[in-house]
Amino acid sequence: MRRIMLIVAYDGTNYKGWQIQKNGETIESVLNRELSRLLKEDIKVIGASRTDSGVHAEGAVCVFDTVSMIPGDKFSFALNQSLPEDIKVMASKEVRASFHPRKTDCLKTYRYSIYNDTFQLPSKRFNTHWVHGELDTEAMSRAAAFLVGEHDFKAFSSQGSSAKTTVRRIERISVEKTGRQIDIFITGNGFLYNMVRIIAGTLIEIGQGKYPPENMMEVLSAGKRERAGQTAPARGLTLVGYEFFDL
Amino acid sequence: MRRIMLIVAYDGTNYKGWQIQKNGETIESVLNRELSRLLKEDIKVIGASRTDSGVHAEGAVCVFDTVSMIPGDKFSFALNQSLPEDIKVMASKEVRASFHPRKTDCLKTYRYSIYNDTFQLPSKRFNTHWVHGELDTEAMSRAAAFLVGEHDFKAFSSQGSSAKTTVRRIERISVEKTGRQIDIFITGNGFLYNMVRIIAGTLIEIGQGKYPPENMMEVLSAGKRERAGQTAPARGLTLVGYEFFDL
Repeated sequence: MRRIMLIVAYDGTNYKGWQIQKNGETIESVLNRELSRLLKEDIKVIGASRTDSGVHAEGAVCVFDTVSMIPGDKFSFALNQSLPEDIKVMASKEVRASFHPRKTDCLKTYRYSIYNDTFQLPSKRFNTHWVHGELDTEAMSRAAAFLVGEHDFKAFSSQGSSAKTTVRRIERISVEKTGRQIDIFITGNGFLYNMVRIIAGTLIEIGQGKYPPENMMEVLSAGKRERAGQTAPARGLTLVGYEFFDL
Repeated sequence: MRRIMLIVAYDGTNYKGWQIQKNGETIESVLNRELSRLLKEDIKVIGASRTDSGVHAEGAVCVFDTVSMIPGDKFSFALNQSLPEDIKVMASKEVRASFHPRKTDCLKTYRYSIYNDTFQLPSKRFNTHWVHGELDTEAMSRAAAFLVGEHDFKAFSSQGSSAKTTVRRIERISVEKTGRQIDIFITGNGFLYNMVRIIAGTLIEIGQGKYPPENMMEVLSAGKRERAGQTAPARGLTLVGYEFFDL
């Protein structure tokens, strides 16, 4: 058996997230179906992580095992023939058989994209969250800086999360403005459920002047979900990619 | 009667272009219908120019006349309530009654967007043209520079065009690379039918190394459509906006 890794990009608008669901199509179900058809084996991919309904990806990662002799880098070409336009395998390669994408240390980067104008620009409607009323990106940047490092991110996780510990490490975070679009990039070693969307929602409220950037420290140390901002909508979130330390 | 100007943005994917057609919905037909409903008058907008089927806009311009007393800047808010998600009026204002958007000197800017990677990124599929095989943007920039100024652009117009003269003036043109996306920005005082898409197609062929940048001069001076590149697909083209000299 050979283990193959896929780098997958998708527009999540029309999917119920990554993970297989009873009702509705998911990225995982489409990949399993098309890989099984292509290889005439019963393929079940192992994802590096899940994304929620409506969330997008440019560099999601999964692996699967196969007896196929197709060269590692050619699976992408073969698979893209039958994948729908909103899911594409950007690259593929063979990895060691013991590589498990959820058991290997990595850094993961998300982008949360906001379109900040009086009205939503139609071409951006599927992958940005529209916020009218000018956001103070300077204040958002200063607030974001408080999150860098190892912290208990309990305040930024949805209730009912099953994580053993709510301590995570954020490696870098930046707020970048390009025209009317604001992109929040967050890189870390792991994220709690809804963590990036709650951070984005909190930064938006700070950008709106609801509280000063320094409050971010208090929200973090209080550790209470209700002190943080709202969970920003799924459509603004994109999983940009992974860096695995031991691939 | 008051004359109102609208700045209109749209995702042209699902429309048969700007101008009213017998078969299929157009931007103009949607605006006429929704304005007439809103104002309870028979409204017919006058567009500054047309865009083809599948072409997008961030700053298309049109005007219409009304007896309505709605403040000029409030038409956008009223109209966006009923417009579909893929058409939005980004701004509105009252202009002098004699202002005609096709009879007023202006500069017009288009962007032609290319996604240049082995596979198309799903989130960019509606508004970039996918080109696999790395493009030499340096060569494209050098070739583009030959087009600046007043020239006979006959080589870059579709056969059967009814324009009186094929002389136009390109004010600026730039080729900008951001990650895997390449944007060609072109600003001029007017464009022949398909001119931007033929220029984009020619620059792509130069970026692919089919001929050297200097050939652009010969294509221009020969004035023969068959010497220029293919007409690049509509989905990559966006009308960015207008600058009117006498508004």
